[in-house]
Amino acid sequence: MLLPLSAFPLPEYASQSVLAGSAVIVIDLLRASTTIATALAHGATEVIPFQTPESALASRKSTNLLGGERNGIRIPGFDLGNSPLEYTRSRVHSRRISFTTTNGTRAILHADAGSANVITIGSLVNLSAVSDFISKLNLPVNILCAGTGGRVSLEDCLAAGAFIERLTANPLRAHHTIEADDQALMMLKLWRSESPGLGRLQEAVSSSAGGRNLLALGFSLDIRECIRIDSHPVVPVFHRGTKTITLR
Amino acid sequence: MLLPLSAFPLPEYASQSVLAGSAVIVIDLLRASTTIATALAHGATEVIPFQTPESALASRKSTNLLGGERNGIRIPGFDLGNSPLEYTRSRVHSRRISFTTTNGTRAILHADAGSANVITIGSLVNLSAVSDFISKLNLPVNILCAGTGGRVSLEDCLAAGAFIERLTANPLRAHHTIEADDQALMMLKLWRSESPGLGRLQEAVSSSAGGRNLLALGFSLDIRECIRIDSHPVVPVFHRGTKTITLR
Repeated sequence: MLLPLSAFPLPEYASQSVLAGSAVIVIDLLRASTTIATALAHGATEVIPFQTPESALASRKSTNLLGGERNGIRIPGFDLGNSPLEYTRSRVHSRRISFTTTNGTRAILHADAGSANVITIGSLVNLSAVSDFISKLNLPVNILCAGTGGRVSLEDCLAAGAFIERLTANPLRAHHTIEADDQALMMLKLWRSESPGLGRLQEAVSSSAGGRNLLALGFSLDIRECIRIDSHPVVPVFHRGTKTITLR
Repeated sequence: MLLPLSAFPLPEYASQSVLAGSAVIVIDLLRASTTIATALAHGATEVIPFQTPESALASRKSTNLLGGERNGIRIPGFDLGNSPLEYTRSRVHSRRISFTTTNGTRAILHADAGSANVITIGSLVNLSAVSDFISKLNLPVNILCAGTGGRVSLEDCLAAGAFIERLTANPLRAHHTIEADDQALMMLKLWRSESPGLGRLQEAVSSSAGGRNLLALGFSLDIRECIRIDSHPVVPVFHRGTKTITLR
């Protein structure tokens, strides 16, 4: 069985016809994907993505936490920003989180609008867990990089390359032929050139559009947190019916 | 002066607002860009791009040659295909060429529709000539990769990386600050990792979507021709008024 593996530097580059019926990995490495994985790993019951702060606020119930950012900064009136370091077990355990971020939310909703069959949230902290889950699905795979403010950003493409390495190498895939497109192969090459050694990876992520933004805002610890490979081995899945993200 | 340098893996990724007023380099390495440079270097007076074989045929005048391909093969009734090796001095000198190819033509017309200020046709055979010309314009630069059949193809992004290396290093640019976006930086990294040594470059281009197509059709000599850096130091410019390509 031939399964295509495609990667897109921005979500809107993936057409509805490509997305329909596929397994999607949404990557917003800095920081939404990492933060969602962290929140769920620390016991949050669900994360509910919203496109705007207003809609997140309107959805507020007494039991919900509000999390998210605009321009990297916690939204006024919200309980939490978009730093994974804020989503500790003591803050989020057993809580529902209404969540809005600029880029990650848009990417998730694009996959939803495109009628993807399965939508997962991928980052380096859950690289192996999500790769293993996706590998077993026997579906065409599309990786959507969130980008930064509508622009391609290197850090998402780099993390996409890590997934492409796992997905094309996974022995569970031995009974399929994975056909990675040229865009995916370029991201794989990028990952292979920038990932040997944690220092090099940190440097590459820090030099990216998203990384420079975070450094300017004083979030250098977040970058280190976002490249801790497999530190939260969970599989966040977006449910198209309920529009919520939970662990599978 | 801050001049943005952006690169797009497919032409349609570049919006009208980004293209308007900019200097564009259209890259269809295998083979339209290379063939156009070769034809003009060998004395063709102009190349007129058409979107369809029918429109190219309808434009035929007694003095025009017809050149182009569909699915890599010369179009029935045409004088020439899309191999640069066909565009010898004895065939094309002093001739006008009506030209239609699948991907390159679409990319040129996208830049035209986007109201770019200057549109050049770039390839490895005219890498330095086009880079030097673009460097002197003091305009924002957009590099449009043609892709293959609507899909991103590695060979165009690789050649784009070569231009990005020249444009960001050119001493003529010393009085500007060139700000390459993350997409451009990734193509630069790709070029730097794949270009040291002609053998490696040939292998990378041969392994790309466009390269595999050509090899399957028996055009392996074309690949070698298309990676002969600076073998045709000419600057093909598309004129938005006349819709023709001539040497500047």
